[in-house]
Amino acid sequence: MKKLLDNPDQAVDDSLTGFAAAHAGLVEVHGLHGAGPVYVTRAGGAVAGKVGLVSGGGSGHEPLHAGFVGDGMLDAAVPGAVFTSPTPDQITPAIQAADAGRGVLAIVKNYTGDVLNFETAVELAEAEDVQVATVVVNDDVAVEDSTWTAGRRGVAGTVMVEKIAGAAAARGDDLAAVAAVAQKVIANVRTMGVALAACTVPHVGKPSFDLADDEIEIGIGIHGEPGRHRVPMAPAAQITELLLEPVVADLGVGAGDTVLLFVNGMGGTPLSELYVVYGRAHALLAQRGVTVARSLVGNYVTSLEMQGASITVLRLDDELEQLWDAPVRTAALHW
Amino acid sequence: MKKLLDNPDQAVDDSLTGFAAAHAGLVEVHGLHGAGPVYVTRAGGAVAGKVGLVSGGGSGHEPLHAGFVGDGMLDAAVPGAVFTSPTPDQITPAIQAADAGRGVLAIVKNYTGDVLNFETAVELAEAEDVQVATVVVNDDVAVEDSTWTAGRRGVAGTVMVEKIAGAAAARGDDLAAVAAVAQKVIANVRTMGVALAACTVPHVGKPSFDLADDEIEIGIGIHGEPGRHRVPMAPAAQITELLLEPVVADLGVGAGDTVLLFVNGMGGTPLSELYVVYGRAHALLAQRGVTVARSLVGNYVTSLEMQGASITVLRLDDELEQLWDAPVRTAALHW
Repeated sequence: MKKLLDNPDQAVDDSLTGFAAAHAGLVEVHGLHGAGPVYVTRAGGAVAGKVGLVSGGGSGHEPLHAGFVGDGMLDAAVPGAVFTSPTPDQITPAIQAADAGRGVLAIVKNYTGDVLNFETAVELAEAEDVQVATVVVNDDVAVEDSTWTAGRRGVAGTVMVEKIAGAAAARGDDLAAVAAVAQKVIANVRTMGVALAACTVPHVGKPSFDLADDEIEIGIGIHGEPGRHRVPMAPAAQITELLLEPVVADLGVGAGDTVLLFVNGMGGTPLSELYVVYGRAHALLAQRGVTVARSLVGNYVTSLEMQGASITVLRLDDELEQLWDAPVRTAALHW
Repeated sequence: MKKLLDNPDQAVDDSLTGFAAAHAGLVEVHGLHGAGPVYVTRAGGAVAGKVGLVSGGGSGHEPLHAGFVGDGMLDAAVPGAVFTSPTPDQITPAIQAADAGRGVLAIVKNYTGDVLNFETAVELAEAEDVQVATVVVNDDVAVEDSTWTAGRRGVAGTVMVEKIAGAAAARGDDLAAVAAVAQKVIANVRTMGVALAACTVPHVGKPSFDLADDEIEIGIGIHGEPGRHRVPMAPAAQITELLLEPVVADLGVGAGDTVLLFVNGMGGTPLSELYVVYGRAHALLAQRGVTVARSLVGNYVTSLEMQGASITVLRLDDELEQLWDAPVRTAALHW
């Protein structure tokens, strides 16, 4: 294993130390190096008069979630150990820190550990008189249940939920309305991914799974959980179809629909290849009469240095498009 | 070789097709799929009353350069084949397209092929009555001469040159002034990189160089050209020192200086590791009494999926800081 790390067991803390230094005006990282529960908030804390947004999950998916803390998106993020759910004692203070009196929306990716720990943390926060609503993101169409999931996994579509719900909070919506917008995004977003090569978790020291030189895994999870099937290596056009068809079918988008198309890198695939996939997916949607009105291409929900990509489609209406376009100022998304 | 590609020989065209589709309101890609010389311009063409900025070089370093076309940065970019200089017949029309009557600054990374082909292209453009100034970026302190270079190579510091010169052009500076700002950045920016593992050029199909499982290359070039020395794999703190010390020494920054610190990923290294390096470098600079006033962390000047990173330091003054902060709207930098 060759990685730019000092102590593999301290990788998350060391990375957050650099993150805090690089974005000092934007975020604050709490509890580093044993000082207490680790969580990330905006610099300056909760915004008066605004519903707070909190998300979190295992580390290793950077920039998710800490990279999305800032104006127009999250108020706090809770990074667990690599590929491991954050604990309630981390999540509860993050929820409290995000509360400015109008309540907090917790955005949870659907993994059993995340869901349970957020539930416990929400109960603890409510006992401290914070009003909390929770939404669970489950956009991955690959499999119904998975290694660490009852029901579908939450993956790259989480970026759309956090961005759009964040914009709804920023325009002044109340907690019920922000939660409703988040649910609307969840109802309209679907994803499927592929792995070409596995990643290595620092404290494990060997690849999470094995793939032969000539095979790929369709429907991979963002922790390397098994997908739908392993197939021989294929051209990008064919892989794109294998990912896009189940997404489109499940979402039921067709002629006359308008969508956002998001090609997400898993961390170890060059941007140039993500654009090849984007071009193929865009053309396939156009052939079906679907209008691609917005795009996102890059490494946003990664699996360390895994080679691969996912395709996400979000069905847009005027409201979702406006909220997507609204200003955002975070480490990883900024416009 | 497992890559998300169709025909490896068409990888650049296929990627640019996706890039054009993803950023249709921002850029236009000319000459795809045999229609003519390939180059990228802003959608809508040159901006009246503004000096134009053109850069270019081999592909495989995405988002450089096409990802930096847009408001506040480049007016045109010229992508060559992978790791291969663009040809004069591509560069000349890009220069012409960037000209709105106030002349064009060509920003060239110091590789012999790039320098020669830009020289020829500039002569051809001048014959068509376009006024052109050229600056050559040579920020890599690793080696004096290299595989494809007389003198130092131009690497990640190019982003700072393009951003800051772009802001000078956007505020209305004339050609001489924009060129002078670019030269000022070049005089104040230095970089050094490390490779942990090589990348594979699509049409070659095997890794560009070999590194043993326990060795890394300090001072690597962005095409995998040899650096200063190969050393055993080491902790991030030690690698950071090996990169930062020569940069700081060459630049002569010390107590009382203010800098921008840029940790650039080579393409296959997770963002979390780049932040570990950033944290170490930031602390080392602080120990020396250097103020890090601005930061950039991410994959901006890549070498396909190479694993590794580079550290860039730019000495700031008030002017450079203001120009860095000025608004930018491109595919890869946006604020």
